[in-house]
Amino acid sequence: MPNFRLVLEYDGAGFEGWQIQPAPRRTVQGVVQTAVARVTTQRVRVVGSGRTDAGVHAEGQVANVAVATGLDADRLRLALNGVLPPDVAVLEASIVPDGFDARRDARSKVYRYAVWNGPTRSPLRATRALCLQRRLDLAALRAGAQAVVGTHDFAAFQASGSLVRRTERTLLRVEATGAAGGAVDLWFEGTGFLRHMVRNLAGTLLEVGSGRRDAADMTAILAARERRRAGPTAPAHALTLVSVRYDSAGGSAASA
Amino acid sequence: MPNFRLVLEYDGAGFEGWQIQPAPRRTVQGVVQTAVARVTTQRVRVVGSGRTDAGVHAEGQVANVAVATGLDADRLRLALNGVLPPDVAVLEASIVPDGFDARRDARSKVYRYAVWNGPTRSPLRATRALCLQRRLDLAALRAGAQAVVGTHDFAAFQASGSLVRRTERTLLRVEATGAAGGAVDLWFEGTGFLRHMVRNLAGTLLEVGSGRRDAADMTAILAARERRRAGPTAPAHALTLVSVRYDSAGGSAASA
Repeated sequence: MPNFRLVLEYDGAGFEGWQIQPAPRRTVQGVVQTAVARVTTQRVRVVGSGRTDAGVHAEGQVANVAVATGLDADRLRLALNGVLPPDVAVLEASIVPDGFDARRDARSKVYRYAVWNGPTRSPLRATRALCLQRRLDLAALRAGAQAVVGTHDFAAFQASGSLVRRTERTLLRVEATGAAGGAVDLWFEGTGFLRHMVRNLAGTLLEVGSGRRDAADMTAILAARERRRAGPTAPAHALTLVSVRYDSAGGSAASA
Repeated sequence: MPNFRLVLEYDGAGFEGWQIQPAPRRTVQGVVQTAVARVTTQRVRVVGSGRTDAGVHAEGQVANVAVATGLDADRLRLALNGVLPPDVAVLEASIVPDGFDARRDARSKVYRYAVWNGPTRSPLRATRALCLQRRLDLAALRAGAQAVVGTHDFAAFQASGSLVRRTERTLLRVEATGAAGGAVDLWFEGTGFLRHMVRNLAGTLLEVGSGRRDAADMTAILAARERRRAGPTAPAHALTLVSVRYDSAGGSAASA
């Protein structure tokens, strides 16, 4: 039974996140599993690299599915795209070793948080970016970003009420690109993320960039391990899972 | 009574076009007039440079409104943005001579028709672009575009059933930018447009670019003056009014 690796793009606006939930809740995993069932007549589980929250988009989510089918990878891709709804597509499909598991084998994930920092809110950008009119101080924002790179206890940045016990995670890269007064992107690459961690980091870093707190606060918040010390959870609609990185055959072609 | 020139951005998805219509039809002109009434307590007419169809976006629609108010242009902009819904914004406001009329004084308009020509449809691009998987021949498309530049009778490219008698119009520029296999934009600058003219030109040019008809057809269609000779009306969601050009004070800052 071949094991297919899929690279998926989706517009998160119409989904209650990645993870399958009971009907009538529409999820990406549910929609993809239904498409696989239609194309192969097999009801099987599609394993994603990780969950994305309701409203979060993906340019390069990676999943794998082991399914009995006579279709080769390219025909499976075309067949799935033929039955998937307009807001999800399979960008790539390939056959990978049986042991490949999109979640367990993921080495890191890259997220982009999009901000429109123009002097006026932008209706066309607002569907996929957070509009912040106060001009950002990118130097301060970058200093705050540097403070969270590395291995830390991110308990202060996980969703309140989370029951995860081990809250240590490693961020490989946190960067701000673009220009104050225009489009600014915050990039987060990490080996794993707690629930709402990217959005809580983004919300707090944007307070640093807006001059409402100091870059040094980031270190203090990490040390305090208290959610209430950090800033707000930035809205989901501006967040995109850009790519998932693997050691070898599982690698996503989407690059950050 | 000051005459204000406004530059407007809007996401056309939630509107039944620019022109005001009876409730419950939601139009850009209607929403902007309501905002002006809330801010100034005056019920006045907002004059747009021209209509945009249902679903068509604008990055630089220009309008003018003569209204009694103590607000200066910048405060009027801020006040309007405070009451306008998220899918419309005033990017610029300025006071212009009493005689300025956004429609009558417009010298040309620039439209962009967005195509995603990647090998797979793109859910994130599909909300604002037409996904065409067959690889476009940009040389053919450009040859077709050149054939319609200039002053011609565009009767074949107006919406069927239109009652406009004078169907001569002038296109100053028709260009394709970008790269086949990726993002391709079709640009149309003209002194005036018939109803559906840009979308009918786009739909026909994309047939040329897809190899389904010859570039020379464009000239033959113009000469025949028959709507049924031209291609389909390309969908509205991929069209954006980029800017409106004026001789002097009325000029839109948005550039193409």
